Amino acid sequence: MAEVASQELLLAAAFVSDAQYNRNIPFKTSPEAVRLYYLYNRWFMRTATYFFIFLNLSLAVFEEPAVYPLPFLATSLVEVLCLLVFFGRLMHFAKITHRNVFWKDTKNICIMVAILLSLTDLAIYGALRIYNIKSVRWSRIVRPIFLINFAESRQIRRAFRSIRNTLPEITYVFLLFMFSLLMFSLMALKLFGERNLQTAEGLPYFRDYLEIVFDLYVLVTTANSPDVMMPAFDFSSWYALFFIAFVIVNTYIFMSLFLAVVYNNYKKHLKNEIRTLAYMKRRKMIEAFNLLKEEEGTQFVVREAMWKQLVKLVAPDISNSHRELLLRISDDEQKGFIDKKSFLQLADLLNIQVITLKIRSHPLGQWMPRVYRSAVSQFLRSVVRHRGFVWTYDVIILINAVFIALDEESPYISYAEWIFLALYIIEILLKVYTYEPRAFFGKNQFWNWFDTLIIFAALTATILNTTLKSTTKYNSQRILDIVFILRVLRLIRIVDSIQRFRVIMNTLINIVPTMLTFGGLTLVVYCIFAIIGMELFHGKIQFFPPNSNAPYALECGNPALKDSLFARGKYCKNNFNNFASSFIVLMELTVVNQWHVFANGFANVTAQPAKLYFIAFHIVMVIIIVNIFVSFILEAFFVEYSLEKSEVETAIEQKIQELGMGVQEEALQDEQLLDNMESPDNDLEGEGGTKAQPKGLVFKIASKRYRTVDALLQRMFEAEIPLEDEGPSFEEILNLSPATAVPGDLTSERAV
Amino acid sequence: MAEVASQELLLAAAFVSDAQYNRNIPFKTSPEAVRLYYLYNRWFMRTATYFFIFLNLSLAVFEEPAVYPLPFLATSLVEVLCLLVFFGRLMHFAKITHRNVFWKDTKNICIMVAILLSLTDLAIYGALRIYNIKSVRWSRIVRPIFLINFAESRQIRRAFRSIRNTLPEITYVFLLFMFSLLMFSLMALKLFGERNLQTAEGLPYFRDYLEIVFDLYVLVTTANSPDVMMPAFDFSSWYALFFIAFVIVNTYIFMSLFLAVVYNNYKKHLKNEIRTLAYMKRRKMIEAFNLLKEEEGTQFVVREAMWKQLVKLVAPDISNSHRELLLRISDDEQKGFIDKKSFLQLADLLNIQVITLKIRSHPLGQWMPRVYRSAVSQFLRSVVRHRGFVWTYDVIILINAVFIALDEESPYISYAEWIFLALYIIEILLKVYTYEPRAFFGKNQFWNWFDTLIIFAALTATILNTTLKSTTKYNSQRILDIVFILRVLRLIRIVDSIQRFRVIMNTLINIVPTMLTFGGLTLVVYCIFAIIGMELFHGKIQFFPPNSNAPYALECGNPALKDSLFARGKYCKNNFNNFASSFIVLMELTVVNQWHVFANGFANVTAQPAKLYFIAFHIVMVIIIVNIFVSFILEAFFVEYSLEKSEVETAIEQKIQELGMGVQEEALQDEQLLDNMESPDNDLEGEGGTKAQPKGLVFKIASKRYRTVDALLQRMFEAEIPLEDEGPSFEEILNLSPATAVPGDLTSERAV
Repeated sequence: MAEVASQELLLAAAFVSDAQYNRNIPFKTSPEAVRLYYLYNRWFMRTATYFFIFLNLSLAVFEEPAVYPLPFLATSLVEVLCLLVFFGRLMHFAKITHRNVFWKDTKNICIMVAILLSLTDLAIYGALRIYNIKSVRWSRIVRPIFLINFAESRQIRRAFRSIRNTLPEITYVFLLFMFSLLMFSLMALKLFGERNLQTAEGLPYFRDYLEIVFDLYVLVTTANSPDVMMPAFDFSSWYALFFIAFVIVNTYIFMSLFLAVVYNNYKKHLKNEIRTLAYMKRRKMIEAFNLLKEEEGTQFVVREAMWKQLVKLVAPDISNSHRELLLRISDDEQKGFIDKKSFLQLADLLNIQVITLKIRSHPLGQWMPRVYRSAVSQFLRSVVRHRGFVWTYDVIILINAVFIALDEESPYISYAEWIFLALYIIEILLKVYTYEPRAFFGKNQFWNWFDTLIIFAALTATILNTTLKSTTKYNSQRILDIVFILRVLRLIRIVDSIQRFRVIMNTLINIVPTMLTFGGLTLVVYCIFAIIGMELFHGKIQFFPPNSNAPYALECGNPALKDSLFARGKYCKNNFNNFASSFIVLMELTVVNQWHVFANGFANVTAQPAKLYFIAFHIVMVIIIVNIFVSFILEAFFVEYSLEKSEVETAIEQKIQELGMGVQEEALQDEQLLDNMESPDNDLEGEGGTKAQPKGLVFKIASKRYRTVDALLQRMFEAEIPLEDEGPSFEEILNLSPATAVPGDLTSERAV
Repeated sequence: MAEVASQELLLAAAFVSDAQYNRNIPFKTSPEAVRLYYLYNRWFMRTATYFFIFLNLSLAVFEEPAVYPLPFLATSLVEVLCLLVFFGRLMHFAKITHRNVFWKDTKNICIMVAILLSLTDLAIYGALRIYNIKSVRWSRIVRPIFLINFAESRQIRRAFRSIRNTLPEITYVFLLFMFSLLMFSLMALKLFGERNLQTAEGLPYFRDYLEIVFDLYVLVTTANSPDVMMPAFDFSSWYALFFIAFVIVNTYIFMSLFLAVVYNNYKKHLKNEIRTLAYMKRRKMIEAFNLLKEEEGTQFVVREAMWKQLVKLVAPDISNSHRELLLRISDDEQKGFIDKKSFLQLADLLNIQVITLKIRSHPLGQWMPRVYRSAVSQFLRSVVRHRGFVWTYDVIILINAVFIALDEESPYISYAEWIFLALYIIEILLKVYTYEPRAFFGKNQFWNWFDTLIIFAALTATILNTTLKSTTKYNSQRILDIVFILRVLRLIRIVDSIQRFRVIMNTLINIVPTMLTFGGLTLVVYCIFAIIGMELFHGKIQFFPPNSNAPYALECGNPALKDSLFARGKYCKNNFNNFASSFIVLMELTVVNQWHVFANGFANVTAQPAKLYFIAFHIVMVIIIVNIFVSFILEAFFVEYSLEKSEVETAIEQKIQELGMGVQEEALQDEQLLDNMESPDNDLEGEGGTKAQPKGLVFKIASKRYRTVDALLQRMFEAEIPLEDEGPSFEEILNLSPATAVPGDLTSERAV
């Protein structure tokens, strides 16, 4: 029986942890598969996967055209290694999922095709290379596929799905927009085509239809406003009306419409996915419950011992006291078993980051209590805790800002820098002296970490710089730059002193993790376009340092650019000659301004259709991705905002408070630090203190704000599903369409 | 008794029409006041007010510096006239509102202060003018106040209120943004300030702190990207990271945050106002009911005769049959009286644009039935109704597009133009022949009107042009331009043939009326900035036609602009020399691109602080107003979208359908025209046909989509208030704050 129980326990644990990770893999249920499943989810396996994904992507830096050239053999060996790792990871995944589920998932097919393509291309390219035939490494653009399809984060795939789902609607709006563009271009051709006007550069103005379409497309992005209008406007003021009408219709209305369509789809699909995930989690928890349930009176329950074993298995690294807390929350009447309702919450309970705070006196207080508790020490600590202490340092920061802005060369100023550094270090030491060091450097004390790191980095860099200067009489430019940046970064802390700013900053910091996944999305698009761009434009434009004697140095080494805006703007360093440059060019194209100068410049040195590359990038990056990014920021902000208003408190948080083991986060924030930690009996003898807790133990929810927007939305949605509703079956969940309403009566339980 | 009844009737009618107009004026209840109230709301009074508001605003075109100069006496007399009209309108308003309400309303105070200021300024300026002392007409910037405070449309005031309410929150984000800007500028100063770098124009790069702040602020708007980065980037590629970080933090994150804050506030206040309006309407209808109610059995009701009199009074211009329809909807069991519940709907009922369609045969069919019903005629009409007819004309339009794009000079092409014109005219004639002309030119047949107008305008212009050409051998440029534009506009119609495009176009067309009120908002901001701009920059920059011999013609007549980007870009015509030019400059500043060139140019010819004018305009127009515009488009789009999904059908529409007097709008759209009008007995003998209707009478809801987003939102909100809930009292409604939840139990009735 023990063997069976442990197998079932293992399986239940797999269900629970799957629900906890919020994944939707219907995995195999044999004990071996469950063990492999655990291995698959280990942090080092995941980290390794990410490492190889980024290694594979970064190969572009070392391959021809390289930033740091490496021999072909080296890069190709690394690529083969990466592909092998990806294949292994995929095989591992195949072992733990049902065969039909595995083959139905486009993710897996994509990965396999990508591996095959990469290997084929590598073989062909290598073979041709032996015979010195130059060919194109076309398979490099499939590399980002691994990032999309392996990534654990749902966000990046969701963004891609969102794009895919938005495409039909966007396409119609885009066609209408193109129609409007073509109509306006036709009008422009008829109005200005035969006026013999000239642009500011002396070129013919609005003669060729395709040129007009391009110019007006650029005007939609506002990049050539008002230049494109000036010749016509100079000719007659009335023609300004044409351009005003154009800008209103195309730039303001159509571009807003694009945002509206993207945002609307984003919201719609977000809702649908959240619903799917919530149902999936509920269903998995029910499966786990069914595996472990025993009869108790009229109902099925899970016994306390079993529950503890389960939690140990699912979350081996939480402390005993934390597990006790979870038990007390789940089994609040201490009946020795957990009913279904409480059991279903387990995944959520495990997800809440509870920080176990040991209420302990300051280590100095233990080592030398006499000194630490002396009147001087007491006074010092009360000074540090006083608001005035913060204000004093705010004033110091402001004075420091003035000193930074002043001239560096004066010796007094550079002495002052040492004084400021000393003051900041004293501040940190005083704070550590006053507050408990382990609390000061707690997981969520963002600003303390930030301060300490910045100041010690600045200290190190300044000492390094001074040493270099005194020994070699030479300022290392790189180190000096870092010192400057660190010095300015120190000033940021002043924001934290003003309540209103702190709220906005917190919102921004909360959004950061999800923003990073948008970084992933951008990375994918950039990689693909950079690789294409390098194939198309590599070596066409060269950068020469000023005063170079190279031929055509002012024309970026290419006579075709003579008199072009590109050369005149001194944009020669914006080229596709290596991976890093390409990224910077693409960044500039994302910012949009002057992109037509780039497009014209590169079209001059290659061929006119090269403009299509730039138009394609604009459509993909600016019209779609940036709009998704804006949608995401809007949605995240609104969720944060509604959270701030409604003070969503879950049952778990309430329970911690009820048990008198909570610490008010406000109190913490107000006093900036764990001030109230020093009175060990604060509330602990509260209402719910039936079972004696280790004295001095207090729990704190890591942050009242759930880190990700996802988690919050899911919680909001879950509050809407009644507890009896077990949701649709796995298959139905996976096929939920955005259009279908929440099905309330599909409570068919699947036998396991 | 009749006298009393008629007085009460009048008062009730005033309440009803007030509810219908959705205004919140608690007006006086004396009969005289009610009559004045009616007068106040007459269309000619309102039109006259608008006329004088725009007349007053347009004075800037005729005053110094004028587009079309008029003597000071003329403009000042017109201004005094306008001010008198405004004063009269205000006094009229004072007569019909309670004194305390009148004086509590900031709108009225604003108007009075504005009138006083204008008169004072006019007097001072006139007096000084007599002694030839030049002074500033500073009061001209208060003129837009009249547009804001008199406007009947709530939207423009709501937008202003929204701005006012958003200000505190925007300010904090803005301060944080400025802090970030200052920090980055400090870093830039330290990193690049001592490198002796030069910009592409050979000017020193990033030396002066204030210059850096300005340059980086411009970079936030992306207007000087990538130029501002190039010198540093050329020096070392690593410096690109600084600019990338800057753009991500400030352009992407902060600018999205601004949109989020504005949008969030817009939504919040929209909701609150809609709620206030809905309660106000409910309350007014209850007041009206209480005035007219009589006892009938256990309940209070309004008798049919009284109800009819009321409707006649409130809406004198609706037809008898329309009134009968409303009665049948309100008193659906034909009991001879209307109960409270039905009565409360009256204002909504009156607001629904019902088109009375008389099912009548074609006038030609009546005049010459033999010919019209002959086989040839029947065939012709069936051809016109066929889908192929539409497709044929779509092909013709496409061919026409190609011909337009071809060279105009060839005689064949200009003959072809006549052929196309003839084809389009034939199409319209055929359609009028086939469909009923009055239906073809119905109120909501947007595309028919559009087509006919465009084609007849094109015909007129083409004939005019040909006549001029043959008589004077001279193409009038203006007329030819109009001909070109009209020709291209004809092509737009092809959009209507594709279902998907039609949906998007309808959404856009529905949004237009509300967008116009944003035009009003923009007008206000533009007026204020244009008047200030003219005072600051008037005459500083001159435009000379090409090949002019004036001194400094290439430097816009101002040596200070030598070698500036402003002169090099040939921007001389962008100046503040008159009201029209100023508007165009402001439009270009709204589009943002190159605004720093303008700012630097005007700062060069006046003084460096002049840049503040441009920064202020950017903050007001781009950060606030454009974001409100985008918020509005987003919200409008989402409402339209949810409408499309949910098919909101009100009780009234259902009733019309039930009574069998409705026409399916889809049927109309599918057949493009009133095809089904010809079978007079379609559905008329339906279920509800107890009372005989005049045969051939069919009602149609003007549009399934309510024209304004407002009306729709209100309807959505009303659906949420239970019918018994009479809402809070007038005073409470007026003081509703956005934060308070919907108060459900404040049902205190006020005695009248």
